[in-house]
Amino acid sequence: MSKAKGLDETKIDKIAKSHMPALGIDLGGTNIRAAAVRDNEIITETERIPTPDGRDNIIEGILELISKFQKDVLVGVGIATAGIVNGDTGEIIGSTGNLPGWSGTPLKQVLEAKLGIPVHVENDANAAGYAEARIEALKRKRCVVTVTLGTGIGGGIVMHGRLFRGANWAAGEVGHIKIALDNKRLCTCGLFDCWEAYGAGRGVIQTAQELLEGVTEAQSPLAKNVDEITTYEIFDAGDAGDIMAQKIVNRWHEHISHGLVNIAHILNPDCFVITGGLSENIDFRLLEDMVADRSLPRVGESIEIRQSALQGQAGIIGAAQFVSDEFLSTRK
Amino acid sequence: MSKAKGLDETKIDKIAKSHMPALGIDLGGTNIRAAAVRDNEIITETERIPTPDGRDNIIEGILELISKFQKDVLVGVGIATAGIVNGDTGEIIGSTGNLPGWSGTPLKQVLEAKLGIPVHVENDANAAGYAEARIEALKRKRCVVTVTLGTGIGGGIVMHGRLFRGANWAAGEVGHIKIALDNKRLCTCGLFDCWEAYGAGRGVIQTAQELLEGVTEAQSPLAKNVDEITTYEIFDAGDAGDIMAQKIVNRWHEHISHGLVNIAHILNPDCFVITGGLSENIDFRLLEDMVADRSLPRVGESIEIRQSALQGQAGIIGAAQFVSDEFLSTRK
Repeated sequence: MSKAKGLDETKIDKIAKSHMPALGIDLGGTNIRAAAVRDNEIITETERIPTPDGRDNIIEGILELISKFQKDVLVGVGIATAGIVNGDTGEIIGSTGNLPGWSGTPLKQVLEAKLGIPVHVENDANAAGYAEARIEALKRKRCVVTVTLGTGIGGGIVMHGRLFRGANWAAGEVGHIKIALDNKRLCTCGLFDCWEAYGAGRGVIQTAQELLEGVTEAQSPLAKNVDEITTYEIFDAGDAGDIMAQKIVNRWHEHISHGLVNIAHILNPDCFVITGGLSENIDFRLLEDMVADRSLPRVGESIEIRQSALQGQAGIIGAAQFVSDEFLSTRK
Repeated sequence: MSKAKGLDETKIDKIAKSHMPALGIDLGGTNIRAAAVRDNEIITETERIPTPDGRDNIIEGILELISKFQKDVLVGVGIATAGIVNGDTGEIIGSTGNLPGWSGTPLKQVLEAKLGIPVHVENDANAAGYAEARIEALKRKRCVVTVTLGTGIGGGIVMHGRLFRGANWAAGEVGHIKIALDNKRLCTCGLFDCWEAYGAGRGVIQTAQELLEGVTEAQSPLAKNVDEITTYEIFDAGDAGDIMAQKIVNRWHEHISHGLVNIAHILNPDCFVITGGLSENIDFRLLEDMVADRSLPRVGESIEIRQSALQGQAGIIGAAQFVSDEFLSTRK
């Protein structure tokens, strides 16, 4: 009897916490953005500041952003950052060109000491993948791989709703799978023929420069300024009907399909989500056909390829949502 | 008091069962082998019969083999087979060239009806990977990928001790990741530039034929009969000091490393186990150097590449062990 009468404080605490938002922060090379998140959705305005130089200034910037959400009662803070992150300790363990000096930062420890609430730090592609795989339409998928196409290529692998991080926190570094033999293209990482040397922004430009060799301006206006050609010019020319540009864009789709095919034959996912700045230029029907064409039937037939539903918000949402989920799962 | 006095039948049952062997059966294109397995080790003689033609004859053959173990009290039967297998229903859902007509066989259902004990059917590369990852030396690894090099290339992915099968039971079809651009080599599966078109037996031969073009018999004895060259001749010539053969073998190592690098950047495993007929010809130090050379530091530094500890026994052991583990996990 006494049990039934007493309040189950733990349960009430859990219910209350499940309705509290978490703060999501996306730390990029250009700016830092923050917003409160509940149920995989942003529920406040997004605040942003330009990314400062140096470790201490970045941490100051993050704290400044967090202070703007003082009025919100937060369950915790999730941070999506470039670089490889130890998901247990929240330390940045792999450097990234965009954030010099960031490697080695014990970010979770520093912030938790100042804030007194749980902080989770996650690689940005992982955070984005976590959010994308949690949208309603994908909740029944078994394995969702989110591929971010931008200045590089990143990946986030979610199996049965859980992030897969690998033995050394570096799973999903899909930009550096090798898609060609014989050292054809040097990647910014120093390795040859990485997927991102073909599929990311720089890759599209290099493909254009190769295919435009010997092409005259009369044949394609793109030939005018090959050395300083941009991805915008290429995609715009393709949309405007330039056949050379369309050939470049088609070749780019082949390169993208090549990497997806490799992931597919290893993981056999039932969904790829494509996101990042370049994803808007993808012809999804063409890409799906190419992947099916280059896959074993059993592997190819089960894959849906989707455009991101969350786009630039995915990092903020995923990092915050991860904190909410972690918090609740440890307080059953 | 009464509780402490009574026997915990479930617990006793579990202890008894954990000491009972399971029967492991490896169904290959050439023969079917069977042995009893306990604690990831074969504890009886291995019985074998040549693989008969046709679905019904194969099933008869399997039953004949099982009858030879009637004296053993078995916890169940595990079968490792080529082809893609639905691990829940035990149905062969993907065909394989070596066992025509095998696809569509509801093997688990047929055998359980006849035997009255649990049967588990598993893809052979998965079964082998499961056994390899369970050896004492690898028990603390987080992600072990076993790669079988033979007439084809197969893969078995074990994460934190559990097999990963993908969304459609086809995870680990690593032989069909694409390692080259531009449709250079046709694979037996009908796709171009699959890893196994370079790394499996046929691939080594094609590499030899390409590299030996224009080479005279005076330069290399291998040039004598290029059209009918075998992998044995190539590896033997390499061991005997033939420089052309060594070049072919080195190139083969590059091809192998290429596929491993792709798996590594997706899964970030801490161990690769290399098995199968061709694995004896691997120079493991060279291969480890090549993989490290072609990987991001964080990915490459954590990978151990090992020769199989179980070799041809791994399929039998893995299939049987899986039954034991499943059986015990469902009877807690």
